[in-house]
Amino acid sequence: MIKKILKFGGTSVGTIDRIQHVANIIKKEQSTGCKIIAIVSAMSGKTNELVKLSREISHDFNKRELDVLLSSGEQVTCALLTGALIELNMKAKSWLNWQIPILTDGDHTNARIINMHIEKIEKYLDQNGIVVIPGFQGISKVGDVTTIGRGGSDATAVAVAKIFNADSCEIYTDVDGVYSTDPNKIPVAKKIDKISYDEMLELSSLGAKVMQPSAVQTAMMYEIPLEVRSTFTDRKGTKIFNQENIDYTKSVTGVAYSKDDAKITVIGVEDKPGIAANIFEPLSKAQINVDMVIQNISSDEKTTDITFTVKRDDVSKTKQILKSDCKINFKEIIQNNKVAKISIVGAGMVSTPGVTYRMFRALSDESINILAISTSEIKLSVIIDEDNTLKAIKKLHSIFDLD
Amino acid sequence: MIKKILKFGGTSVGTIDRIQHVANIIKKEQSTGCKIIAIVSAMSGKTNELVKLSREISHDFNKRELDVLLSSGEQVTCALLTGALIELNMKAKSWLNWQIPILTDGDHTNARIINMHIEKIEKYLDQNGIVVIPGFQGISKVGDVTTIGRGGSDATAVAVAKIFNADSCEIYTDVDGVYSTDPNKIPVAKKIDKISYDEMLELSSLGAKVMQPSAVQTAMMYEIPLEVRSTFTDRKGTKIFNQENIDYTKSVTGVAYSKDDAKITVIGVEDKPGIAANIFEPLSKAQINVDMVIQNISSDEKTTDITFTVKRDDVSKTKQILKSDCKINFKEIIQNNKVAKISIVGAGMVSTPGVTYRMFRALSDESINILAISTSEIKLSVIIDEDNTLKAIKKLHSIFDLD
Repeated sequence: MIKKILKFGGTSVGTIDRIQHVANIIKKEQSTGCKIIAIVSAMSGKTNELVKLSREISHDFNKRELDVLLSSGEQVTCALLTGALIELNMKAKSWLNWQIPILTDGDHTNARIINMHIEKIEKYLDQNGIVVIPGFQGISKVGDVTTIGRGGSDATAVAVAKIFNADSCEIYTDVDGVYSTDPNKIPVAKKIDKISYDEMLELSSLGAKVMQPSAVQTAMMYEIPLEVRSTFTDRKGTKIFNQENIDYTKSVTGVAYSKDDAKITVIGVEDKPGIAANIFEPLSKAQINVDMVIQNISSDEKTTDITFTVKRDDVSKTKQILKSDCKINFKEIIQNNKVAKISIVGAGMVSTPGVTYRMFRALSDESINILAISTSEIKLSVIIDEDNTLKAIKKLHSIFDLD
Repeated sequence: MIKKILKFGGTSVGTIDRIQHVANIIKKEQSTGCKIIAIVSAMSGKTNELVKLSREISHDFNKRELDVLLSSGEQVTCALLTGALIELNMKAKSWLNWQIPILTDGDHTNARIINMHIEKIEKYLDQNGIVVIPGFQGISKVGDVTTIGRGGSDATAVAVAKIFNADSCEIYTDVDGVYSTDPNKIPVAKKIDKISYDEMLELSSLGAKVMQPSAVQTAMMYEIPLEVRSTFTDRKGTKIFNQENIDYTKSVTGVAYSKDDAKITVIGVEDKPGIAANIFEPLSKAQINVDMVIQNISSDEKTTDITFTVKRDDVSKTKQILKSDCKINFKEIIQNNKVAKISIVGAGMVSTPGVTYRMFRALSDESINILAISTSEIKLSVIIDEDNTLKAIKKLHSIFDLD
């Protein structure tokens, strides 16, 4: 008998009507002869509302208690959905974090699921019962409530799929699936039918926020087939699995962008070995993620300029570390927050020569200046002026046959 | 070291400001050298809001899931109050129903607390920690979430006081204490400083809804001193304890009223033994609570009329049972919903002759007709026309020196 994990995000369970609709989806799925475990998020807006309450008390609200507070959101949805299933004459039962239990490791507000007790639930599934589990939470070894970070219901779904050895894990959300680029910005964006875990990871970490990246990573590690699909239509979504299972006809699968980055240039640094290490070691120790790095040729022979990108939120901290903690001399620091990162992603890129060249030529044809470049096996990213974002995405989407 | 249980009702924790105020009350209490366990209700309106959500799904929402749903309300307050205490540099920790655990017996939505594990909490209290516990809930022997009925946070407070052998149990609410009658209706109503458990029970079951009756009953059984007081003033409240500890200067402690009753008269019943049993046995089996009973003298000698009162909600069910299940013949059934029950309550009544007579005379002076009478050791109740309620309360409050 096929065992399916169905995860429903906040907008999918945002109202009573929608919860009833979700109950009908589950009923239909079970009628095809599947065993169903449903994972639910808090009703949309609920988690923010609870966070807001905690902030009124303290901006540094105790994290143990924050977890107790926030976990109530999924508990509510869990009970409502189970009630709605029972109202449809289904056999259904909610199982809270401590009732399973879902065991976690790590810090409050940022835990990681390590195990679950499956016997009772397996037995209930064997009796044709539908199991409803709150996403985003678990309990620690000392028996405290722990949450697993924003978007954590995806992580719960994948962990449940892994531990229960499920045949598939379907992520129901408010979009149809993963698109070749942002459909709100580029109307010709196309839904992707099949995509590899790696591509999905590159796309989601670059702003196509359909699924939480660490959940995709876990699915990849344990080869759990995923499907992202809409709660509000019957259409098929995007299937996510191993690269080997995908027949690539196109070199590029999608174009992603993000506006989270800032460019920093350290001017007039002494040009000698060890300088880069002197700059990047203190930044790394301060948990600042440096993305792209370029060492420029300087006008005078004894010094050079070093350019790199960091998240915009980290800019002031970065500048402070450069001035105080890095053992380097430099003339000045220039920063530019008005940049965008544009990436083409595709597992077919490695086997298709000329993708890099075609991207650069296309941007040059549109008079878009490239400020920095980084590459990986399945991704090619450039930093450009923020104002050129839309023009760049349109052009790349078109020349790589994605329209 | 004195161990205090402080219970805060829904309006006392209805907003973040109020939760912070409650945290300050707790801080002040602890600073006098007490060990504190705080019990909290859901924020005011929250439980109704959750019930409303469940009703949108079904008016017969599954009770197991309803308990999961409703218990989230106190969980939220628990976390917020604990966070607020920590923000005041107090050592504090929330303990949820399953973390203690609070073990219950009985049905979903109507369970009863039977035990709690106290070791961990006692240890934490010894380390000067403040313990915050959600009211109204526990877990069953099979590990399901159970709630203990509306107003159940009072029951939790008293159960915690009993199991932890606390020195006192303070019920913080939105009124100053227990009044000699409804202060909203009769401005001369006076706050009672001390009252016995019995009197409190009679008053609370008669509409002075300051505390949940079954919680008062438990407190009485285990002689737990209670105090009802306002969260919003510093004034002393009403202390509730054993009759022996009270020095009665007045025969009557308070005047209560309720408008929940209806009067039913069965006319033309055969006047022979066993008739009353034939009427009241089926009603009792149907869980209908018959309060006062009067057997009238009938005009003809072979039949009589029987009058009794039931809750208004039970009227149609009562009439149906009289017609179908009771083995009696009768001419007709007359019902009167427009009645009020007025009661004088006082542990000093037994030792004061003439109270009954003075009550009847006072009502007669006001031309108020008495439709039925019932008496107990500490209570004397009459049924009158609803329209005379206010006039009757005013008069009785005055003649028994309560103004």
